[in-house]
Amino acid sequence: MDRHSVGLVEEQHFSFGSTEEPMRLESGYMLGPVDIVYETYGEPDEDRSNAILIVHALSGDAHVAGYHHPNDRRTGWWDSMVGPGKAFDTARYWVICSNIIGGCKGSTGPGSTNPKTGKPYCLDFPMVTVGDMVNAQKRLIDHLGIRKLLAVVGGSFGGFQVLEWTLRYSDMVASAICIAASAKLSVQGLAFNTVGRHAIITDPGWQEGRYYGTPGPVQGLAIARMIGHITYLSDLSMDFKFGRRLQSADRLGYDLSTDFAVESYLKYQGYSFTERFDANSYLYITKAMDYFDIARSYGPLTEVFRPVTAKYLIISYSSDWLFATGQSKEIVRALLANHKDVTFIEIDSPYGHDAFLIEEQQLARMLKPFLDCVSSST
Amino acid sequence: MDRHSVGLVEEQHFSFGSTEEPMRLESGYMLGPVDIVYETYGEPDEDRSNAILIVHALSGDAHVAGYHHPNDRRTGWWDSMVGPGKAFDTARYWVICSNIIGGCKGSTGPGSTNPKTGKPYCLDFPMVTVGDMVNAQKRLIDHLGIRKLLAVVGGSFGGFQVLEWTLRYSDMVASAICIAASAKLSVQGLAFNTVGRHAIITDPGWQEGRYYGTPGPVQGLAIARMIGHITYLSDLSMDFKFGRRLQSADRLGYDLSTDFAVESYLKYQGYSFTERFDANSYLYITKAMDYFDIARSYGPLTEVFRPVTAKYLIISYSSDWLFATGQSKEIVRALLANHKDVTFIEIDSPYGHDAFLIEEQQLARMLKPFLDCVSSST
Repeated sequence: MDRHSVGLVEEQHFSFGSTEEPMRLESGYMLGPVDIVYETYGEPDEDRSNAILIVHALSGDAHVAGYHHPNDRRTGWWDSMVGPGKAFDTARYWVICSNIIGGCKGSTGPGSTNPKTGKPYCLDFPMVTVGDMVNAQKRLIDHLGIRKLLAVVGGSFGGFQVLEWTLRYSDMVASAICIAASAKLSVQGLAFNTVGRHAIITDPGWQEGRYYGTPGPVQGLAIARMIGHITYLSDLSMDFKFGRRLQSADRLGYDLSTDFAVESYLKYQGYSFTERFDANSYLYITKAMDYFDIARSYGPLTEVFRPVTAKYLIISYSSDWLFATGQSKEIVRALLANHKDVTFIEIDSPYGHDAFLIEEQQLARMLKPFLDCVSSST
Repeated sequence: MDRHSVGLVEEQHFSFGSTEEPMRLESGYMLGPVDIVYETYGEPDEDRSNAILIVHALSGDAHVAGYHHPNDRRTGWWDSMVGPGKAFDTARYWVICSNIIGGCKGSTGPGSTNPKTGKPYCLDFPMVTVGDMVNAQKRLIDHLGIRKLLAVVGGSFGGFQVLEWTLRYSDMVASAICIAASAKLSVQGLAFNTVGRHAIITDPGWQEGRYYGTPGPVQGLAIARMIGHITYLSDLSMDFKFGRRLQSADRLGYDLSTDFAVESYLKYQGYSFTERFDANSYLYITKAMDYFDIARSYGPLTEVFRPVTAKYLIISYSSDWLFATGQSKEIVRALLANHKDVTFIEIDSPYGHDAFLIEEQQLARMLKPFLDCVSSST
């Protein structure tokens, strides 16, 4: 085992609420009981002031680093960033990540059992917003005895949660690291989500969401994921990775089967996703993403950040066209207008939106001194 | 009737080849007989030297301008550009446009009757390339008694045909106007086409392409078109057009139904497309688009343009990310390396790829003097 690995980790469970005392959601609907799956890495210090909450993106989960079983072939999704001596140094920090509600990786979501029927919620699961997800995370953080998080950090949809944390629980967040995100989902992002959801719900396998125990909307979910994948890559990174290379022949096939490597890659990505992700969760989470709009929820951007006290680190990537740099700058401008402590950097990278999961070294170089600075001043 | 309109026009028909003497395709497969639907506007001059061939994009057809019936509510697809006094001035030029083979608007395609079976070809229709489409157009141009085209002009997939014309029939093309196109489809374009086709062929209504007489893959084709639509617009133009405006309420619905105007727009565009376009043609034409790659067909770009004699006008649009300006510049560089006569302009527009159908005034300002110049020097 690599000495920088967190090694073997275990999923942990936390529940709150009940059918009698449910969680009230932003929509006005109720949800309870609520189960949260989470993992922790490193150890809390005496006053639990060294806690870093990582919040995950659309298809992520609580398993950020290390292995669940000695034979696991893959580590957690951000293993490169979490461990002894890494950017989120588990020798110093206590790192926590939980699966979002609405998800399908252990926390309560549309595939969970509805206590009122004993069957999966399916579409009876209430719509959850980014605010609801953060409220559930807050219950977990309270449960862990943390009064103030040293940092909340996340990329993409995780960045939405980071911003929401600083607006809802300003006095519990010493610093906020918001990567490849925005103050609202762009209309282009809305449009791609629309098509992805539409592919799922028009798949006959979807059955109005009541497909548990059957194969489900495999084709629709694969198509949604294929669309997503294209938006996560830049044209340049696709060119590096595949170009117009043919998949398995030196001449064109002149038929409708796969010719180009990129076709084969997208199909593989699409279908392998269907083995690990629930289509209804995909619907609910993309809808939460669509709804995310700080100005709609809280008022003009230049005013909503007035009460926040966190130090912000805002990061974008030069070739990210889904969450382009201009969208990060909108947050930065609003913070500056309120004389807030904000550091902004556009990292030069050809990898598009996915860069936050790829360009570890460049990211680590920013995060380490930022966290040093935050932890020495708290 | 507007005095700049071409008024009422009629579809015309031309056929060549037969089952005994078919057209040989690039793939080596044979196709015959071949029917071509076309329209003409204006009149030929004495030596037929004033002919302009317009070639259409993916979902276009031969009906460029005017009306088929006095009650038609819509004109042809480029009516703003073709008519007396317009950019393609029908008082001076004889304008011709034909439907591409493989299409579904009258020319032979997968929905046409296979003479060997008396039933629609379906997937027995052979794959056709851009080169094959141009070869069929060449037969029409010969039939019309035209020795040299004053101009061949097209945008997007039409631009591919323009370039192919100048490479295959250099001495028949006095000028080439290539708008929002490239020397090969980008890998990102390949990727979007892949997902669109995949949505069609995984729709149970597709039935391996034998769906004629049934509703067919309506959902899949609508999804393919929705994806296409997003790529034709810029983020900025979507922002202008819809932003994050809600469709029909002043609050969020908190359910899976339509919330945002852009969702409603995309669904409308997707489904209305299924009423006017054949899914198999969509598969064949996008495959022809994927295969288009001048360097693969003819050799290094810097060498293939050596024998061409046409004057070129290459136009791109600043916010077009599907056929970004860099892709047009690749053609321009190859032409310049061969000391060819080329004019290049990037038109500043927020409308993305669709700009070539929207920014008529800006385009007309380029085309008129260019055509003046070509027609005075031939």
